[in-house]
Amino acid sequence: MQASATPEERLVALGLKLPVAAQALGNYEPWCIVGNLLMISGQFPWIDGELQFKGRLGRELDLSEGYAACRLAMLNAIAQLKCAVGELRHIRRIYRLEGILNVAEGFHDHPKALDGASDLALQVFGDRGRHTRMIFSNPVMPMDSFCLVYAFAEVDLSALEAK
Amino acid sequence: MQASATPEERLVALGLKLPVAAQALGNYEPWCIVGNLLMISGQFPWIDGELQFKGRLGRELDLSEGYAACRLAMLNAIAQLKCAVGELRHIRRIYRLEGILNVAEGFHDHPKALDGASDLALQVFGDRGRHTRMIFSNPVMPMDSFCLVYAFAEVDLSALEAK
Amino acid sequence: MQASATPEERLVALGLKLPVAAQALGNYEPWCIVGNLLMISGQFPWIDGELQFKGRLGRELDLSEGYAACRLAMLNAIAQLKCAVGELRHIRRIYRLEGILNVAEGFHDHPKALDGASDLALQVFGDRGRHTRMIFSNPVMPMDSFCLVYAFAEVDLSALEAK
Repeated sequence: MQASATPEERLVALGLKLPVAAQALGNYEPWCIVGNLLMISGQFPWIDGELQFKGRLGRELDLSEGYAACRLAMLNAIAQLKCAVGELRHIRRIYRLEGILNVAEGFHDHPKALDGASDLALQVFGDRGRHTRMIFSNPVMPMDSFCLVYAFAEVDLSALEAK
Repeated sequence: MQASATPEERLVALGLKLPVAAQALGNYEPWCIVGNLLMISGQFPWIDGELQFKGRLGRELDLSEGYAACRLAMLNAIAQLKCAVGELRHIRRIYRLEGILNVAEGFHDHPKALDGASDLALQVFGDRGRHTRMIFSNPVMPMDSFCLVYAFAEVDLSALEAK
Repeated sequence: MQASATPEERLVALGLKLPVAAQALGNYEPWCIVGNLLMISGQFPWIDGELQFKGRLGRELDLSEGYAACRLAMLNAIAQLKCAVGELRHIRRIYRLEGILNVAEGFHDHPKALDGASDLALQVFGDRGRHTRMIFSNPVMPMDSFCLVYAFAEVDLSALEAK
């Protein structure tokens, strides 16, 4: 893949299709831009409104499934980012990811599952996807989802305003 | 309510009175402003230092109580925002709410409880209260509080500096 | 200690030595700067790659150990901040700390443990260390660490760019 490929071209090369950006679960916005900072609300691992991964890592899900779930939640996050900016090249940098996972007691390797989100950010955005990260374990999740992922990005405001 | 009503007038119309802004529980600040971004520390559902909602959603508390608790924590958050800016019209936008709830195993509908905070943000700030959101479940809370809510806002810095 | 002492001098006066900044546990960056905002990924209470505090507050750890753990995680956070800016005087303000602790059921005094991080921020940065704060309890932690601490800071960008 050329360094000059757009994020959309990289998604195609990865064989990935952006899902329709999900509606909020409550009375809030899926994304907003403040100054040149774009942020999204928590994103679930679903496809067309069907949640794909429920339960706990180390109980209902193994590490490869946890990885796939975080990757899918990140794909939903990218769909929201695209809603916000139109073309993903207007994202200057994804500078932070945070992930909340439901993890069985005694399982302590969940950062490797969240790499599913981090790896995808880097595959799709290249150096512009290099991010800081935070990980949480929560014992109860909305809809029993295994994970929630959210992202913060810096956008090219002049490009957005020129539209 | 007229669109031009101030947040303080909207609070009166809702029959709500801002509580005294709470002291921090530790060695930290209740709020701070960085650039034109205002943020607060976590706020509890209390009135005059009396915590009103303890325990878990789906065990000690039902959904309507959880909703009321998040609404009250948000009212405390608004009290902090007012401390920071003096008059709430100097808040250009509340762009993010995050809520931490204590939720019983098997209960997965907690986003509806956090709507208590989101709905109040919109009732008090109108379009300026439209926010992204994140939800967490935590099994142990300070003082056994059911919830903690915090907010990030963009402020009108020129108005604040003119004072 | 004079008000004009640098953070590095204050660390020496406290008898503290910054640990080597830790590697990330996954495919992410330990820190990044966006605009004039510096943020770090979650930091653990370790020394030279050896995790010092595992388990839960109120079970394996008492309050004084929890305090020491949060203080050590904050020391690791300061090591990351120094990596980012070279000299800590380029940090204009540490404006937010967030801490995730593993807490036994029935123990509700964990804000006092997180004061270990907050107190150190103030001891090292003085008024520039005055921060807002958020606290979480998580039931499962990476590597069974007791705590994770992360910080957001405003930096003096002109000083950094002049280098």
